[in-house]
Amino acid sequence: FIRSSLEGVNPADITALLYEFDAEECKYVFSLLPKEVDAAILNDLEDDLRERFISEFSPEELAQYLEHLDSDDGADILYQMSIKKREEVIKYIENEEKASNILDLLRYDEDVAGGLMAKELIKANINWTILQCIEEIRKQAENVQKIYSVYVVDNLGKLVGKVSLKRIILAEDGVKIADIYDDTVVSVETYMEDEEVAQIMQKYDLEAVPVVNARGKLVGRITIDDVIDVITEMAEEERQMMAGISSDVEEDDTVWMLSKARLPWLIVGMVGGLAGAQFIGLFKGDIALIPALAFFIPLITATGGNVGIQSSSIVVQSLANPNVFSDGLLRRLMKVLFVAVVNGVILALMVFGVVMLFNRNEPLAATVSIALFSVVLLASFMGTITPLVLDKFGINPALASGPFITTANDLLGLAVYFSVAHLLYNL
Amino acid sequence: FIRSSLEGVNPADITALLYEFDAEECKYVFSLLPKEVDAAILNDLEDDLRERFISEFSPEELAQYLEHLDSDDGADILYQMSIKKREEVIKYIENEEKASNILDLLRYDEDVAGGLMAKELIKANINWTILQCIEEIRKQAENVQKIYSVYVVDNLGKLVGKVSLKRIILAEDGVKIADIYDDTVVSVETYMEDEEVAQIMQKYDLEAVPVVNARGKLVGRITIDDVIDVITEMAEEERQMMAGISSDVEEDDTVWMLSKARLPWLIVGMVGGLAGAQFIGLFKGDIALIPALAFFIPLITATGGNVGIQSSSIVVQSLANPNVFSDGLLRRLMKVLFVAVVNGVILALMVFGVVMLFNRNEPLAATVSIALFSVVLLASFMGTITPLVLDKFGINPALASGPFITTANDLLGLAVYFSVAHLLYNL
Ligand SMILES: [Mg+2]
Ligand SMILES: [Mg+2]
Ligand SMILES: [Mg+2]
Ligand SMILES: [Mg+2]
Ligand SMILES: [Mg+2]
Ligand SMILES: [Mg+2]
Ligand SMILES: [Mg+2]
Ligand SMILES: [Mg+2]
Ligand SMILES: [Mg+2]
Ligand SMILES: [Mg+2]
Ligand SMILES: [Mg+2]
Ligand SMILES: [Mg+2]
Ligand SMILES: [Mg+2]
Repeated sequence: FIRSSLEGVNPADITALLYEFDAEECKYVFSLLPKEVDAAILNDLEDDLRERFISEFSPEELAQYLEHLDSDDGADILYQMSIKKREEVIKYIENEEKASNILDLLRYDEDVAGGLMAKELIKANINWTILQCIEEIRKQAENVQKIYSVYVVDNLGKLVGKVSLKRIILAEDGVKIADIYDDTVVSVETYMEDEEVAQIMQKYDLEAVPVVNARGKLVGRITIDDVIDVITEMAEEERQMMAGISSDVEEDDTVWMLSKARLPWLIVGMVGGLAGAQFIGLFKGDIALIPALAFFIPLITATGGNVGIQSSSIVVQSLANPNVFSDGLLRRLMKVLFVAVVNGVILALMVFGVVMLFNRNEPLAATVSIALFSVVLLASFMGTITPLVLDKFGINPALASGPFITTANDLLGLAVYFSVAHLLYNL
Repeated sequence: FIRSSLEGVNPADITALLYEFDAEECKYVFSLLPKEVDAAILNDLEDDLRERFISEFSPEELAQYLEHLDSDDGADILYQMSIKKREEVIKYIENEEKASNILDLLRYDEDVAGGLMAKELIKANINWTILQCIEEIRKQAENVQKIYSVYVVDNLGKLVGKVSLKRIILAEDGVKIADIYDDTVVSVETYMEDEEVAQIMQKYDLEAVPVVNARGKLVGRITIDDVIDVITEMAEEERQMMAGISSDVEEDDTVWMLSKARLPWLIVGMVGGLAGAQFIGLFKGDIALIPALAFFIPLITATGGNVGIQSSSIVVQSLANPNVFSDGLLRRLMKVLFVAVVNGVILALMVFGVVMLFNRNEPLAATVSIALFSVVLLASFMGTITPLVLDKFGINPALASGPFITTANDLLGLAVYFSVAHLLYNL
């Protein structure tokens, strides 16, 4: 019954169903389906779940699934195994070409173009005729699911251009590739960072991009579906950094995994809070004298945190769209300063008014509003400089929009607030 | 000189250059380039800059550019004009079909499938032969830049399947479409939300998806390049919400625009801070008696904020990947509670230890750690429930990971802290 009701269903839909099943049931469903559907499902699965699946299957079974997958997806699955299991699986792959393609791809880091590309593609020699090219397409039809363009290479295997399938269909049979190919093809090199590949494909609206090695030889092709997965993962990573979650967890992970991913930044925040407590302790005398000083601590720290996160996220955005913006550091900081002054003055005036209204206490209102203004300025500066510095050192700048900046700004805010208070009240 | 040096350069690269130029220079570059390149550049420009360009050009000039663009891009550009200018531009479009296509697209909201699709596509009747289909491709070759698949319709114009270009190339000339088409095509309806379209294209690894109206008639096609732009915009919007920036600004916008986008949430935070000040004021007596109570205010509010953002961002992530996770609300909350208890106990014990070590004050250590534990629990609960409620009401749940949750948790944290302190010290 299950078999018949799953016939004709897209593997991606079956994958979604499997999340509801337990390991036993999943294995049973797998045994009912054709091998190529199983392979597609294995490829679609989310990392965590796939790891569980991999440990359930023998190297032989896994090798059979890999036969039905593109080399890039095969390599991704092998990356999730121990080196020992990897070797065993590769040994069992019967298709020689598939095995050597996958082995070739394993040489690349996962986060560069080489780790994103598949070896499956259609290439045509520039001296071929259209008919020769169509013959090649016929030969490779099984291996290359989606062709998009045929890549044109010279006798040395160097990429020199591409021909779209549309052009091939419309061309007369006798025409040579050399007469109709497009020599302005955009390509990427194997070691290019995945983020950059994503930016290039988005900029030129590409559905596939050829990959060349350092000598210009065509070695693979990256398709947009895999790049979309990169884009989605980047967004998820950024969200986690901004939220202070230190590893890739989802709501369906175990309680312990979730706790462990959240604890590190909570502890950093707590240490910051304890340091803040020690610091405020230094001004015990002032607080005993004017307890109202304590009332405004949350106002100061909250504003510092908000301003800091706003500033850093604007910088993170610029870094993500590098072509939109390219001012020098100094002009950048000047602008940040201007924005901070505008907002700082407005907030400080509002707070001054409110405190005067409710507390009728001029020195208190002055202290709070001067401190607030200074905090806005300092937090803007910190929020701008931190992601730039992180980026310089190759760290994801989104880290700066997380609890790190809030904690730092809490301490900075307290320092400013109590220094201003101490000064003003002792004049 | 400029003309020759720009020849053969990809329009997307020229677009990137234009950001460095002023309005005069841009117009000059435009006048040197062929109309179709100008059109591509206009299409590539970021919204802000395009608005400036649009106001510089006459309706006649704009109409000429639109002739060279796909209908979806034409509609997007028209959306940026006043209704009056729109009508004038449409009047000047000479290509009747283009004009009516664009008019048709203007009926749809920008954020549904109808607003993403282009009218340009190749369709073939199911009764045609391959040769008739190739003839149609030849006729439409100018209009449809990238074909991907030919969509197959019945005599009523209803979508019944698709044929890939690969299949068309490999088919014998006499074969009928009916014999080789694939009837399991994934399609979307005109009113489907853009986020959902993005999810579907990502799930099934599609580079293009046909759009049908409520009666199943093929009306357009969405290509992946436009969907990637949607995905990028969604990520940007989420970043801005998490950072408390209330409109779409970038670092290169004016000081005033930047200030205006940042002020609203800063003011919300400030009002929260002032409310907090009033609230702490109620416990003036306790603070005067035990000034050390004030020291731990930042610890409590910071932890509440961090826990709240972590919780909400995990929920936001689940909402973004609906197929990975589907537990009921109660099980979800139970799990959140478990994670909160684990983290709360660990943090509370650490804080108890540190306060005992430095302050040697048992009631103080007990107060702070009990309050901290309660805040972790409450903030987890708030952080989980808020995005779910926002999502129910059709508001972007990422709003819950912004300053809103921090402000709410600051107040909540203060309430818990001082209530616990008041109770413990008056026992
Ligand atoms: Mg990377
Ligand atoms: Mg890979
Ligand atoms: Mg694009
Ligand atoms: Mg792939
Ligand atoms: Mg893939
Ligand atoms: Mg996971
Ligand atoms: Mg929407
Ligand atoms: Mg549109
Ligand atoms: Mg996918
Ligand atoms: Mg388009
Ligand atoms: Mg577009
Ligand atoms: Mg803008
Ligand atoms: Mg805070």
